[in-house]
Amino acid sequence: MDERVREHAAVLVDWSARIEAGDDVVVSVAEDAHDLGVAVARELGERGANVVTLYGSGEVERAILKGREDASSGDFEAEPPEFDSDPPHELALLEAADAYLRLGGGRNTAATADVSDGIRQGYARSRRGIREARMETDWVSTVHPTRSLAQQAGMAHEEHREFVYNAVLRDWESLAEEMAILKELLDDGEMVRIRTERDGEPETDLTLSIAGRTAVNSAASVAYDSHNLPSGEVFTAPAGVDGEIRFDVPMTIEGTRVRDVRLTLADGEVTDFEAETGAEAIASVLETDGGARRIGELGIGMNRGIDRATDSILFDEKMAGTVHLALGRAYDACLPAGESGNDSAVHVDLIADVSGDSTLEIDGEVVQRNGTFRWEDGFEG
Amino acid sequence: MDERVREHAAVLVDWSARIEAGDDVVVSVAEDAHDLGVAVARELGERGANVVTLYGSGEVERAILKGREDASSGDFEAEPPEFDSDPPHELALLEAADAYLRLGGGRNTAATADVSDGIRQGYARSRRGIREARMETDWVSTVHPTRSLAQQAGMAHEEHREFVYNAVLRDWESLAEEMAILKELLDDGEMVRIRTERDGEPETDLTLSIAGRTAVNSAASVAYDSHNLPSGEVFTAPAGVDGEIRFDVPMTIEGTRVRDVRLTLADGEVTDFEAETGAEAIASVLETDGGARRIGELGIGMNRGIDRATDSILFDEKMAGTVHLALGRAYDACLPAGESGNDSAVHVDLIADVSGDSTLEIDGEVVQRNGTFRWEDGFEG
Repeated sequence: MDERVREHAAVLVDWSARIEAGDDVVVSVAEDAHDLGVAVARELGERGANVVTLYGSGEVERAILKGREDASSGDFEAEPPEFDSDPPHELALLEAADAYLRLGGGRNTAATADVSDGIRQGYARSRRGIREARMETDWVSTVHPTRSLAQQAGMAHEEHREFVYNAVLRDWESLAEEMAILKELLDDGEMVRIRTERDGEPETDLTLSIAGRTAVNSAASVAYDSHNLPSGEVFTAPAGVDGEIRFDVPMTIEGTRVRDVRLTLADGEVTDFEAETGAEAIASVLETDGGARRIGELGIGMNRGIDRATDSILFDEKMAGTVHLALGRAYDACLPAGESGNDSAVHVDLIADVSGDSTLEIDGEVVQRNGTFRWEDGFEG
Repeated sequence: MDERVREHAAVLVDWSARIEAGDDVVVSVAEDAHDLGVAVARELGERGANVVTLYGSGEVERAILKGREDASSGDFEAEPPEFDSDPPHELALLEAADAYLRLGGGRNTAATADVSDGIRQGYARSRRGIREARMETDWVSTVHPTRSLAQQAGMAHEEHREFVYNAVLRDWESLAEEMAILKELLDDGEMVRIRTERDGEPETDLTLSIAGRTAVNSAASVAYDSHNLPSGEVFTAPAGVDGEIRFDVPMTIEGTRVRDVRLTLADGEVTDFEAETGAEAIASVLETDGGARRIGELGIGMNRGIDRATDSILFDEKMAGTVHLALGRAYDACLPAGESGNDSAVHVDLIADVSGDSTLEIDGEVVQRNGTFRWEDGFEG
């Protein structure tokens, strides 16, 4: 086995999930994540954790949903599909778990592309309690570099493996220290303004009010309330969002390629949108529920191990020189005690490149210009 | 997808496990059983069942156990390995499940061969409650025809697929009706006698007293208290066994190839044994405990889809034209209310070919001659 697979497993178990002896751990292994699954199992066994291994197969999930489709009338508006809500066996598993490690890496990133929206949405709505129980654990999501992810990234398999391990095998402790600087600025700030220009013309101009919100230093560890490996972003939950933004990092949403999404927001809500490609996927997300039209997250990428967009949200949103907004659910960690943030069944990130002509200001002070933070070499004040 | 995979899934879900809308089902998918997993998921989705999919990987299990080995002193006699007993997340999952479908078919039937006995036994002991919770569900065990199982059977992959689907895709309803005839004869009977000749000389001559015992019509369905797919045997728990029997179907017991085992029994206990190969494996079984020297089961194979021995007990013991005895534990279902049958930590089946010169009598009447039952064409009365 590639030594980097072992290192990945050790970072996941120790730095990210902080597993200890006696922890009851659920590991979800995607179709082609077998090798990482074996490496993680060995680390968990060595630490004396108790392991339940789920098969996280997109093709199995599609089959369940297509089966529901077969059994329904097909007219989901007239007859919404019925799913039992929060099946008790799955809920009991997650409620009793201390940690949940998701090892992504399926055989086909479009494995569920032909599932109809009505079924998909009904299924997501029926699993709210299960999602919440999973989020209550020390959960961490990572991916094994598979051929399918390499293909999605437009990279050779070995090239993609290099890319993934560059992003995952960081000096997390020192990155966490750098991110703490930005977190402090956001915690103390009241208003973020993001502006970009293209060919000398203003493009994005967005203001986000963040007064009283707490930013998360997402250092790829549950100890930092950070649940992705790799991570390397600082994010918060904006209270209000106004203006226009163009997301120029291409991505795939629910199996549909999406490119150049433009949102117009007023009083925190999306009032208008367009997209060069994939507008229907954005429309479907926005229609999920009331909260899907509001912004749950502002994130700022800081992982310099990620040097290009690869159509994988786990990596793209952490890329240094990008910012992202999420339609839908806000994370509680960002909210003042007792306040509930934006609620939705979805959380869909959209990413904008800010490495070009751009500024990110907090309360009128430029914190990042053209992708360079003010504490970094080369910052033009 | 091969249509037979879909049919296998439908038989498993409908005939074997009797899944209904709203059932909470756990499906365990082995490494190479993906296609069957997908087909089963579709059937379950269509029926409105709620599905949790486990990854039943021998390599993941080995990694957990090798991890425990790494963390222990290695001297398991002085320092037995410690496992938390019945981890609550796994126990909760199974306790809340209505059905458990095990889809076997790993990449290597010897995947856990190098795990030390001390670790293996400690792990098994720690999971008694989980095993019991699983047995409380409507559980069914089947296999997907993988290359690894084809290799173990000494068959080409496509040849083995034919073999497996021949065994699995039966007309179970009519086989169950045929088996019911034999069950009734056994239920009403007091004494079974099995005789075989070889080259005109008497070989097996065994009498088994079955008065008051109830036979199980093992028709591959939980509705028949039968938990294997394929099945196709009628079995009971004899009270006393006397005589001699030769088991000429080769098999592997605890990793050792065993051939031509002869047992001599008096008052239900093995008084003498020999074997052409693997005598030490039989000796090891007999020495397990007091109950291992007694016979827990008489089974009569009736699945005509299984036309040869493949060194897989799931198939071999169901083969038409064979009978088998099990050393060790008897099943409660066969015993009169309040009576406890033979108790042992083991249940090891040994199989005899009765398709040649042989008779099977119940209370002096010939029920099967030379492998043909008296209700079948070609029976010579």
